[in-house]
Amino acid sequence: MMNNALVTILGAGAAGIGMATTLKRLGIEDIQVIDKGQVGASFRKWPSSTHFISPSFNTNGFGFPDLNAITPDTSPGYFSNNEHPSGKMYAAYLTEVAQHFNLPIYTNEEIKEILYTKDGYLLASNHEVYKSKYLIIALGDFHFPNINGIKGGELGIHYTGLGDYSKLTDTDTYAIIGGNESGFDAAINLAKNKKKSIIYTDSTGIDSTSSDPSLGLSIYTRNRYEEFKDWIQIQRGVRIQNIIKSEQGYQMVDSNNNIYHSIAQPILATGFATIQSPLIKHLFEESNQRPVLNHIDESTIYPNLFMVGPQVEHEGVILCYIYKYRQRFAVIADEIAARENIDLDQDMLQYYIDNQMYLDDLSDCGTDCVC
Amino acid sequence: MMNNALVTILGAGAAGIGMATTLKRLGIEDIQVIDKGQVGASFRKWPSSTHFISPSFNTNGFGFPDLNAITPDTSPGYFSNNEHPSGKMYAAYLTEVAQHFNLPIYTNEEIKEILYTKDGYLLASNHEVYKSKYLIIALGDFHFPNINGIKGGELGIHYTGLGDYSKLTDTDTYAIIGGNESGFDAAINLAKNKKKSIIYTDSTGIDSTSSDPSLGLSIYTRNRYEEFKDWIQIQRGVRIQNIIKSEQGYQMVDSNNNIYHSIAQPILATGFATIQSPLIKHLFEESNQRPVLNHIDESTIYPNLFMVGPQVEHEGVILCYIYKYRQRFAVIADEIAARENIDLDQDMLQYYIDNQMYLDDLSDCGTDCVC
Repeated sequence: MMNNALVTILGAGAAGIGMATTLKRLGIEDIQVIDKGQVGASFRKWPSSTHFISPSFNTNGFGFPDLNAITPDTSPGYFSNNEHPSGKMYAAYLTEVAQHFNLPIYTNEEIKEILYTKDGYLLASNHEVYKSKYLIIALGDFHFPNINGIKGGELGIHYTGLGDYSKLTDTDTYAIIGGNESGFDAAINLAKNKKKSIIYTDSTGIDSTSSDPSLGLSIYTRNRYEEFKDWIQIQRGVRIQNIIKSEQGYQMVDSNNNIYHSIAQPILATGFATIQSPLIKHLFEESNQRPVLNHIDESTIYPNLFMVGPQVEHEGVILCYIYKYRQRFAVIADEIAARENIDLDQDMLQYYIDNQMYLDDLSDCGTDCVC
Repeated sequence: MMNNALVTILGAGAAGIGMATTLKRLGIEDIQVIDKGQVGASFRKWPSSTHFISPSFNTNGFGFPDLNAITPDTSPGYFSNNEHPSGKMYAAYLTEVAQHFNLPIYTNEEIKEILYTKDGYLLASNHEVYKSKYLIIALGDFHFPNINGIKGGELGIHYTGLGDYSKLTDTDTYAIIGGNESGFDAAINLAKNKKKSIIYTDSTGIDSTSSDPSLGLSIYTRNRYEEFKDWIQIQRGVRIQNIIKSEQGYQMVDSNNNIYHSIAQPILATGFATIQSPLIKHLFEESNQRPVLNHIDESTIYPNLFMVGPQVEHEGVILCYIYKYRQRFAVIADEIAARENIDLDQDMLQYYIDNQMYLDDLSDCGTDCVC
């Protein structure tokens, strides 16, 4: 069988559902969304103790869409009645949005191969082939642990695999490699379960004076850390490069050849990198573990191939939160419409613009607060 | 002595400091701000347990000013390192903004009388007279309890006068009159201090299905209520009209002549109403306890007299939160500039517009969320 559409969106998470909704509402209806799991599958896999660090609040009516919303007029905060939704709450919100806008989604469909031909893109699963002129990669990054070049990194346990913290049975102090949001989140949740930890890091957001939540730690995490700081030790200036299994547990070797011991399996809070997915690695140039994109988020190697979501970076601005990357959905929609001579719904486009969901120039994006 | 300026702003709270900053940055520099206390005096008087119900977060760099900010590029959340700043934190933030922008403020200056003459407005304190062509009332509403027409209301204690809840010594159940944000806030903080309460109300935000936080209860308050609901009883469909001192305490009589008893002094969570201030009552027409304003927030009785802040209402939209009313500062600045042939800084004006801080048409303001 063959499923044709003008645009295929790969991934039914926040980026994919947000992109699909934007295309459909603006007037590009010939789309298909494919995901190997359910809508919001990555969010469903979040540890139950992990919540959004950016607060959700229903100010949509006043031109301030809920920070974690994927459309101007929905609110995961209002939907879940929670200012910091959990992954499961957020997945339920995404599912509701997808249903409300009747998005054409193929779930539980694992794409095995992506081919570019002169007619467009072919995406093959075990049973089906999906064809489209345009392809938008919206894989998010939670499924793609980045072990950051640490030799023996596979001996550790990545943050994304921690699951339920109360089931971690080691009574010894846990070693956490990485001192940004996920490292502190792991440490705080270990502390909540009365487990001590040491964070090993060569740079930590807690020392940052930047007001950009992707560089400094968020207010939410800083406040939680204050509450549990007695349980958490921070070992600064340490870049772990190697993990070795020892008789008592694990040895971690840093760039100065200092050795640190851990009885429990070390926790790798070393980030994510979609670009490492073998499914798409060949489709983009890579620089600093991120895909190289042009000014409209298109691959520099393949035409009509876009990326949306937390891997997108522009002019030094990392679009790693929803409130940042959702601003690019309508820009891509606008570009596809121009190439296809499709008349977009101008009122709806203005509505996206009025709600800060059309950011075509990131050069003004600084995050310095005056006070 | 006489202090002259083109514009006088009465009140150095969120509305006054926000308005003054906007005027100055847009190019209207001949201003003076007067307050009977310090900058942010009302916020300093908040009960220490009271925090902002709208979350603060530093997303300023991405076109989403912190919801509680009074300028596009400041963040009380970042400044105070707290997502729900207390009154004292917020007062410190306002003070910092006022200093940063070098606002000309007369503090501890209580205006006793406001006169309109053919030359403009004269504001007289015991020692000084302040003169200006334009007058902007920015009194906020915290200082102006509204007992909502309840006979014997003065026998109760208004929410604004509760102070430190841990010092409330009555062991009996407290009666709270009013079932919106402040009523629930009082009940929750009583519960935190192990005190029970009954909320008497004819309509309560907790039953509301509106997504407007000024009509329904905020997420923050709903979550707190859930935690303490065992301590809080809600008596719905009751409109208290009369309070009578009895031998055992107080009798509250509702519109159906039912009588409820309370040993402790009843708490009036019946709202605020700046318009009741004797200082300004004669300057505005009044309708439903709110000032009547034209489409640019000017008095319908006096020329060049504007109001900013939580008392402003337009087309059914109550601008009772900072993220709502801050959108009107630049609209008023624009109007004054037009009348005075002052060229506003167009780049700065665009900056305000780009950050959703120039709302000249409220007819689109609904707050219905799709999901």
